[in-house]
Amino acid sequence: MPTRPLLELARLVEGRIVSGEPGDIHDANSLTNAGPGEITYAVDEKNLRRVKDSRAGACLIQEKFATHAELQDVTPVLVAVADPLDAFLKILAQYRPQPSRPELGISPAAHVDPTARVGKQTNIHPGAVLSAGVVVGDRCEIHPGVVLGAGARVGNDCVLHPHVVLYAGVEIQDRVIIHAGAVLGADGFGYRFRGGRFEKIPQLGTVLVDSDVEIGANTTIDRGAIGPTRVGAGTKLDNQVMIGHNCQLGRHNVFASQVGLAGSVTTGDYVRLAGQVGVADHIEIGQGATVGAKAGVLRNIPAGETQVGIPARPEKEEFRIVMATSRTPEMRQTLRAVEERLQRVEQQLASPPGAGS
Amino acid sequence: MPTRPLLELARLVEGRIVSGEPGDIHDANSLTNAGPGEITYAVDEKNLRRVKDSRAGACLIQEKFATHAELQDVTPVLVAVADPLDAFLKILAQYRPQPSRPELGISPAAHVDPTARVGKQTNIHPGAVLSAGVVVGDRCEIHPGVVLGAGARVGNDCVLHPHVVLYAGVEIQDRVIIHAGAVLGADGFGYRFRGGRFEKIPQLGTVLVDSDVEIGANTTIDRGAIGPTRVGAGTKLDNQVMIGHNCQLGRHNVFASQVGLAGSVTTGDYVRLAGQVGVADHIEIGQGATVGAKAGVLRNIPAGETQVGIPARPEKEEFRIVMATSRTPEMRQTLRAVEERLQRVEQQLASPPGAGS
Amino acid sequence: MPTRPLLELARLVEGRIVSGEPGDIHDANSLTNAGPGEITYAVDEKNLRRVKDSRAGACLIQEKFATHAELQDVTPVLVAVADPLDAFLKILAQYRPQPSRPELGISPAAHVDPTARVGKQTNIHPGAVLSAGVVVGDRCEIHPGVVLGAGARVGNDCVLHPHVVLYAGVEIQDRVIIHAGAVLGADGFGYRFRGGRFEKIPQLGTVLVDSDVEIGANTTIDRGAIGPTRVGAGTKLDNQVMIGHNCQLGRHNVFASQVGLAGSVTTGDYVRLAGQVGVADHIEIGQGATVGAKAGVLRNIPAGETQVGIPARPEKEEFRIVMATSRTPEMRQTLRAVEERLQRVEQQLASPPGAGS
Repeated sequence: MPTRPLLELARLVEGRIVSGEPGDIHDANSLTNAGPGEITYAVDEKNLRRVKDSRAGACLIQEKFATHAELQDVTPVLVAVADPLDAFLKILAQYRPQPSRPELGISPAAHVDPTARVGKQTNIHPGAVLSAGVVVGDRCEIHPGVVLGAGARVGNDCVLHPHVVLYAGVEIQDRVIIHAGAVLGADGFGYRFRGGRFEKIPQLGTVLVDSDVEIGANTTIDRGAIGPTRVGAGTKLDNQVMIGHNCQLGRHNVFASQVGLAGSVTTGDYVRLAGQVGVADHIEIGQGATVGAKAGVLRNIPAGETQVGIPARPEKEEFRIVMATSRTPEMRQTLRAVEERLQRVEQQLASPPGAGS
Repeated sequence: MPTRPLLELARLVEGRIVSGEPGDIHDANSLTNAGPGEITYAVDEKNLRRVKDSRAGACLIQEKFATHAELQDVTPVLVAVADPLDAFLKILAQYRPQPSRPELGISPAAHVDPTARVGKQTNIHPGAVLSAGVVVGDRCEIHPGVVLGAGARVGNDCVLHPHVVLYAGVEIQDRVIIHAGAVLGADGFGYRFRGGRFEKIPQLGTVLVDSDVEIGANTTIDRGAIGPTRVGAGTKLDNQVMIGHNCQLGRHNVFASQVGLAGSVTTGDYVRLAGQVGVADHIEIGQGATVGAKAGVLRNIPAGETQVGIPARPEKEEFRIVMATSRTPEMRQTLRAVEERLQRVEQQLASPPGAGS
Repeated sequence: MPTRPLLELARLVEGRIVSGEPGDIHDANSLTNAGPGEITYAVDEKNLRRVKDSRAGACLIQEKFATHAELQDVTPVLVAVADPLDAFLKILAQYRPQPSRPELGISPAAHVDPTARVGKQTNIHPGAVLSAGVVVGDRCEIHPGVVLGAGARVGNDCVLHPHVVLYAGVEIQDRVIIHAGAVLGADGFGYRFRGGRFEKIPQLGTVLVDSDVEIGANTTIDRGAIGPTRVGAGTKLDNQVMIGHNCQLGRHNVFASQVGLAGSVTTGDYVRLAGQVGVADHIEIGQGATVGAKAGVLRNIPAGETQVGIPARPEKEEFRIVMATSRTPEMRQTLRAVEERLQRVEQQLASPPGAGS
């Protein structure tokens, strides 16, 4: 990576040298890992303490902390900027330029049905399969092994990483990123029990994914039974998330990895589910609600509420219960002691002092 | 979709118009989503209330509810039938005809070993790999990117969706459906700790899947260490389920998504595991047992029993404990109050009224 | 499988016939499943009881148990050896010889960029993709559908099963086994919330996997945000494990299936996580620590400690709490009885016997 003078980097991000001798910077790194000659950043006040321990060559800080007590006599040269993360990402891009997209077009080693349509400046990599009636927009990257089932539609500026599968009829809008191994549109888990066996109920719906969605590796989103399973615009799903059939996800949701939604769950906008959360079928989660890691959601959650626990309850209530139950062993001892004391009291009352013996 | 007269649809399902003016129907939809001109259905009594709120053009109901109080003056034209879901699926198929299977045969872009044998009317899609000694039966659909390891065997009328992997020697019987990304026959997780490191114990068994099984997207079933891991006939596994090595699953089991079984678990027939259940190694779950969502099974479960919780316990017992523990904070307060009252009583007894002060 | 005299097998493992008439053995099997004519083994004392019930033709036991009371008059011919599992695996290999690796070289149906370098005796199977600048070492097996992104590096003697994906720049050392569908190097789950939407933070780090690591089917390991996500030498990850960005795993860790680590988790050497454990971001787990199944780790775990529960606590503490809370319903009853008794006592004291009424 090319070495650059810190002064040049500071100019790039409209930064002001606060203290120290600006030298040369050869890379950008995290606050934990940055060493001499590397530039790093501290987002907020609670990171300032760690700047003291840092051996970094330079550190981007907020202008308002320029004279902060924690930052006296630190090793890194301090550069004050309006938004340290923003500035850092701009500088990072200097050292780690993203490769420009290859001009591949449709690889001869891809399997493209004659009825499929592919937009401009879109790359179809070797081993990708575009079935009959598929439509892919402009400037997309369709990586090796991606399989687009009959009639699947991909908008503009999408990236489908290796082995992503869209079953027949699945549609995604613009600027959608789907990571390797994700499967959209597999049959929902629907059976009826009759004559001692489970008969498959045909899953005839589809999956519709709105724009600016990102979907993690090996995540699965099942097709609806009759209508579509939907993912709202701007929603981000981490790896190994499971979305059951008929779910209707709002916009700008964030689900961490290994979250599982049973069928027909509805979420408002800005819903956040932490890792390994499970949600029962037909649950409604209101706008802006948050659910803590590993929670099991069995009842609807009102808008704006934070819930945790199995079963999930409002945060305060659950913490009160967890705190109390963690002291249950002591309570048992106390209760036993109380019983003994009470028994002594009862005996004393049954045979009052004056009664002799 | 073609519009059809309701009377024609009613004849198709041997239905009887109970009330309303039969008009034209242009689609079939769920009770929640059906609008004017669409036909829907209500399976049982508890759905009848929702028929009142429905704007659907027609609704299939059970004959025995034809004069039910909830169904007076509803918007949908009511059609009484013997089995509403059955009738609905028949009508749905009219509007959403499933595409007939393509006559593809063995794609020239598939990689088929000369020693592999493929049955009649079976399609091998582009990019599928059939290794040495593979046998695939009649009328199968082997989708793009499916990899069948050496000696793997697939019965008749199976559907293997894109990127399904059967490791060497894995065998599946007839009418098995496996969704995209599922992996059958990866090595079980077996090591011995020796000399400060984990040595791999060879996993020489296989996976045997009986007929009429359906396996969800990205589900994994490990091969046995010595003998086979088995999945019984008619069993249905949802997405992202994990079945460890040497497990022996009974017939007509239903496991929801993200269930995980450690090694050597045995289940009887008709076992149901809800989402995200975990089962420890060597556990036996009896016929007809049910385990609630997110439970952790650490002990054998007798036939027919329903268990929930971590660790899993009989349902009634667990609910009693959950109810009680949710009131632990109040119990703590009560106990504290009891202690204080008791102390007052003790003090009173220690210095009886007559003793002065 | 070829039948062999037990005496020949005993010689092979330096075993001594302890009791019974050594006959012919046609296969090796587990203690549970071995029948007449099959040889099995009992690792330790607690298995000896099961030898009594076994109909196996022969059983390998530890020399020190040769005269054990449980082993009088058992059906299997007993063969005493130094290490029964070791001996068993040696014999098992006689009956189930592993196929030698095919001499395939680079399949003409693989997609290998002209700038990619492939070592000696390495097989690149049909449909595998090696992008620009990829380096693969000697004696590797790169199975069908494996995708190696630009600049990815694979050491010597590695096995990458079907559809494994290494994103650009990911590096794995020697003797690494990765099972089907695993994805290394997908973008970490990093966004900043600004202007009502989640903006993607570029994930510019990579994944580095040290030697002798085994990674299960459909497991995902995300690339670091700036630096690498690391997996230490000898570590074993089961199926469907999720490792978030920037995690630093020590050596010889063992994670069972469906374990999930959020970002920036650090583990020492010899850490063991049981199935479905979740670990919050930035947690440090000390060397030799163990975490029980389904636990949720929210605080750092000191070296050597065993923790269980949600939230995870030291094992003894958690068991004490679980035991106590399981008796909470009885405590409630006891407490209610105590309250009533106390009330009676208080009433008695308020109106002492002599006070009449």
